[in-house]
Amino acid sequence: MTRARPGRRPGAPDTKGDILTAARTEFAAKGYDGASMRGIAARAGVDASLVHHYFRGKEKLFLAAMEIPFDPEVIAERVEGGPLATVGERAARTFFEIWGDPDRQGPLLAVLRSAMSHPDAARMLREFVTRSILSRVLLAFEGVPDAPLRAEAMVSHLIGVAIARYVVQLEPIASASDDEIVALIGPALQTYVDKALATKGLAAED
Amino acid sequence: MTRARPGRRPGAPDTKGDILTAARTEFAAKGYDGASMRGIAARAGVDASLVHHYFRGKEKLFLAAMEIPFDPEVIAERVEGGPLATVGERAARTFFEIWGDPDRQGPLLAVLRSAMSHPDAARMLREFVTRSILSRVLLAFEGVPDAPLRAEAMVSHLIGVAIARYVVQLEPIASASDDEIVALIGPALQTYVDKALATKGLAAED
Repeated sequence: MTRARPGRRPGAPDTKGDILTAARTEFAAKGYDGASMRGIAARAGVDASLVHHYFRGKEKLFLAAMEIPFDPEVIAERVEGGPLATVGERAARTFFEIWGDPDRQGPLLAVLRSAMSHPDAARMLREFVTRSILSRVLLAFEGVPDAPLRAEAMVSHLIGVAIARYVVQLEPIASASDDEIVALIGPALQTYVDKALATKGLAAED
Repeated sequence: MTRARPGRRPGAPDTKGDILTAARTEFAAKGYDGASMRGIAARAGVDASLVHHYFRGKEKLFLAAMEIPFDPEVIAERVEGGPLATVGERAARTFFEIWGDPDRQGPLLAVLRSAMSHPDAARMLREFVTRSILSRVLLAFEGVPDAPLRAEAMVSHLIGVAIARYVVQLEPIASASDDEIVALIGPALQTYVDKALATKGLAAED
């Protein structure tokens, strides 16, 4: 099935749309790790070089196919771009800047909803978060013991707050400003780094 | 619609089942706050005293109708039953004892899934969590500034970790033992109390 796009002539081939549709099917069937550009090209009936031409790589194709409204590279740069002593605050600020944008909130909630209800979608999300987000963010956690566990606890916390604010709409947390939320959540996130370093007799450097 | 129950004679009236069905409809239509025992009785076509006889009050009826597998009173006792200096650890331990029970995990995920996808269910969950859980748990937070915001951040964190562990199944957090999880999450939850008291120049007493 191709989707009609504004400006496209009726009956004209929508190669890009065909690739996105093939990608959604392939990612659902094989997960993020198992899917390949070659397999998606075959499913769309196009040459693999065309898929590369349009989407550059598997990650970009996944982001486009799932309509994920952020770039994991940019997130990683924000989380890495500062001292470990303020990583909690930076993670919270980056997260709520993205979620606070009404145009991005809908697609993000759709991904989360889908993962809550469909094991295939949960697997895709798990593999994508692990490969694309955590693996990059962990570069900022050099020297922190149990860094993967702690980074996942931080991400989990942020997701939980997003659900409380944007889905369940608990008050007063839903109506708090982003600045208040960052001031509230940042120190708890920071604990994950600080407590780990403290076990080594270290402190996060300013 | 009545559901057949084991041991019930075919055709025999299932008053309790009728009340539960009426309660689900009434809670969905009016929310937790708006629904009343009287309205549910009327919808089920029975006397209000019979609803009280079977379920004692609105909260117990809600727990039964939504198949919520824990008692908010017991949770509140656990969270209150100790010094404020260890409230984070107690909250984490209580939460993961309930979620770690396979018989209770399914119903809890069903409630969460439903809230993610249906605004009526989200409203019910919000009102129930506010009235039944937060209002009780907050009794343990006497003297903590911004206690409602901080308690909601704690609950949000726990829900986020449940999603990461039981739905998305991120590793290594999904396979960590409950003891490891309590040791990991407890100190971050505790931050919400400790930072608030620190702004008043106080510390949580052991």
